[in-house]
Order: sequence, then structure tokens, then C-alpha cells
Amino acid sequence: MSTPAPRPAPTLEGLIAALRRFVGERDWQQFHDPKNLAMLLASEAGELVAEYRWVKGDAADAHSREPAARARIAAEIADVGIALVLLCDRIGLDLPQAMADKLARNAERYPVATARGRADRPDDSR
Amino acid sequence: MSTPAPRPAPTLEGLIAALRRFVGERDWQQFHDPKNLAMLLASEAGELVAEYRWVKGDAADAHSREPAARARIAAEIADVGIALVLLCDRIGLDLPQAMADKLARNAERYPVATARGRADRPDDSR
Amino acid sequence: MSTPAPRPAPTLEGLIAALRRFVGERDWQQFHDPKNLAMLLASEAGELVAEYRWVKGDAADAHSREPAARARIAAEIADVGIALVLLCDRIGLDLPQAMADKLARNAERYPVATARGRADRPDDSR
Amino acid sequence: MSTPAPRPAPTLEGLIAALRRFVGERDWQQFHDPKNLAMLLASEAGELVAEYRWVKGDAADAHSREPAARARIAAEIADVGIALVLLCDRIGLDLPQAMADKLARNAERYPVATARGRADRPDDSR
Repeated sequence: MSTPAPRPAPTLEGLIAALRRFVGERDWQQFHDPKNLAMLLASEAGELVAEYRWVKGDAADAHSREPAARARIAAEIADVGIALVLLCDRIGLDLPQAMADKLARNAERYPVATARGRADRPDDSR
Repeated sequence: MSTPAPRPAPTLEGLIAALRRFVGERDWQQFHDPKNLAMLLASEAGELVAEYRWVKGDAADAHSREPAARARIAAEIADVGIALVLLCDRIGLDLPQAMADKLARNAERYPVATARGRADRPDDSR
Repeated sequence: MSTPAPRPAPTLEGLIAALRRFVGERDWQQFHDPKNLAMLLASEAGELVAEYRWVKGDAADAHSREPAARARIAAEIADVGIALVLLCDRIGLDLPQAMADKLARNAERYPVATARGRADRPDDSR
Repeated sequence: MSTPAPRPAPTLEGLIAALRRFVGERDWQQFHDPKNLAMLLASEAGELVAEYRWVKGDAADAHSREPAARARIAAEIADVGIALVLLCDRIGLDLPQAMADKLARNAERYPVATARGRADRPDDSR
């Protein structure tokens, strides 16, 4: 009896294709304008925050490993990721490139010499 | 005179490595427990929502192409993506795999036969 | 047979007192530091957003009157209000006064002459 | 020379009237459908979360008293309050009554006997 071939690791391209099929089969594109997808993302981010709101900061790593919590956290993170990829696909944005570009700008904005070890850095996104 | 070689497209692995370097050089790991990263993600999601809050739903695609708005939206999306990848890296979660798993569960949860074209589907993440 | 006396309308002071009693009886003050309450508020705001994310903007008023949706929306709004009052009480902030002060600053910031009818006003809170 | 009369404390009714005037003078009602106001609220909640995201939980009370932080926090809280009151006014919801009703339901849902001192209580709003 043969063992099943291992499933290949999912790629971003594969996820985009799967999401398009999932949404298309359900005729949900009509609901997925960028405004609504931004709302989807915010509501999923709110659910992720809910997972950590009563956990102390120095217990948050251990909480993230506790099996039942981890399953919920992984699902919420996945929901955020799905909303993010749906939005990028809708507006034709290359997510990894946008992240690389932003990271390059952040590196200029927060020079190591002044930002090192400082929590009072300005908001990353302004 | 030679033209520069094209930069290769960023990969998730490359982004994770770059983020680790960026955070490590600034000694910011101390602030990046999973609870704080969930808050970072929520605040970045809030900024993305702000970009669309006064835009009509049927104008949101065009808004997303208008150059000045697009630059801001791309930066906010990138910030959300960065927060998400930082969180996954912190807790050791494989983001594409988590998304593929969740999408498979969503496909069972929202059968095409009953979910097709319905906006009143239950919340995706409960 | 006498009809029951009508319940008086709840006041902010009465709500604060009731919330203190509710929290105190459950010994939940220990979880209610301002950081955690800000997270509570964000997660409740996310649930409120979820109520409207698939509704078209020009159908959102009617949706808010539909009885089942209205009950859910009222509960989510109440949760946001409760989180907000808990946070203000925790940090000793007079919410109505803070709102009046902010509204006065907003009136200076968005002069009628330039702000009238413009959706592209800057973010209210920066 | 007479001292000025003290300004009376703002009431919810007074704030609602002031907000209606503020919005009406700027002709902003057109942007304030309930969906957009829910987005406004979520984005303001995100800014409030940003104030606390790098602060340790046990330092969050002291942070809330530090004058510069307090001014920013008060402004963000006020923005959330303003969004909440705008939304309630738009959909004709009595906010204090909705909060009192929800608190009564929460009291049934989380009996003192079982909820006392437990952080792992279910999400308040489900």
C-alpha cells in the first residue's frame, strides 16, 4: 500500500487562485468591493485582538502555543490573511512587493542610531 | 554601460528574513510579543479602513486606482501585511498553510448550493 | 391594581455605578488595565463593522431598522459604549467633557468655509 | 470685574445637538450613513489601540496619566465617543438605554458564581 504523496506547500499564487475559485463559485465578487474587504479585514483583526485581550503580555507567547488557543489564533490569523489577499487581488496590488517597498521606507524612517530600543517611536504608518 | 539586473520578486521567506533583520537591528523584539503585534495589526487595519470610510462602495475600485490614494492604500496594506508576518514569525505559524487550511474549512462551511449569491452568510470566522 | 412606575432613563453616572458593581462582583478589575480595555473596545468595534460589511451604503439605514439586525447592532453598539465607559472610568477621564473639548477643536480644524461638503477632509483625529 | 460663570458640564443631549450642528454646517450628513460611521468608529478605535500597543499592561495606568500621552488618549477616546454618538443619532438608538439593556443581559450571562475572577470568560458580545 502506498503512502499518499505529500501535499506541496501552498504558495501565494496558489492561494490567490483558490480564493478566486472559492469566491467565484459562490458569486460573492459582488460583495467584495475594496471598501467591504477593508471592513472584512478590520472585523477579522478585531477577532484576533479578542484572542489576546485578557492575556498578559508576558504570557502571550505561551498562550499562543496552548493547543485550543493556538487553533483559534491560527484561524483568526488566516482570516486576516485571506481578507488581505482578497483585497490585494481586487485592486491588483502585489502584496510581497508592497511589503518590501514599505520595509525599505521604514528602514529610512527609523534609523538604527535613533530608533534602537525605543518604544516611543512614532506610529509606523504615518 | 550596463543596465542594472532586475531585482528578483520578494518572497515570503525573504520578507521574513528582512523583517527579522530590521527588528533585530533596532532591538524591537522586546516590544513584539504576540499581544502587542495583534494590537499593531488592529491599528494598521484601522488606518486602512480610514482610507475607504468616506468613499462610496461603487467608487472604491476607482479610488483604489487614483495615484495618491493608491500610494496610501498600498502603504497601509503593506503595514497590515508586515504586522501579520511579524506575528506569524513570532508564534511560529506557517501563514500560507494556515490560510489554505482555513479556506478548506470555509469551503465546507459555506456550501455552494446554499451560500451562492447570499450576503447574509454568517460571519466567516465563527 | 397599580401599573409599575416607569424605570427612569439611565444616566452616565448610573451606568458607571452599575458597571463598577458588575465588574467588582466578578473580580474583573484585574483584567481591566487601560491597554486591555482599549483591546476590548477595538474587538467590539470590529464586531460592529462586521454587521455592516456586506450591506450597501445606501441600504445601511434600512438595515439598521430591520428588527433582527437592529437587535444585533444595538448590542454591538452597547458593547462599544461599555468598553468606552470602562476605559474612561479606569483612567479617570470625563467622557462628555473630552468629547465637547474635541468637538471644539474639530470646529477650528475644519472651518465651514473650506470643509463644507468635502469628503476628502483629512482624518479627524490627526 | 466679574468672573465668568462656569460652563455647565456637557450632557449627552447637548453633545448630540452640537454634533448635529457641526455636521449640518459642513454638509457632512451625506457621508454619514451607518456603514461609514461604523468604519469611522473602527478607525478611531484603531488609533486608540495604537496609543497602548507598545506599553506594558502594568504600565498602562501610569502611561494614561503622563500629560502628553493623556492628551492624545483623551482625544482618541473623544473621537471614538463622537463616532459612537453620531451612529446612534443616525439610526435613532438611545445609547444609555442600549448599554443598560446589554449590561442586564451580561449579568445573566456571566453569573457571579461561575465568572468570578476568570479571564477565560467567553467573548462578551456573543
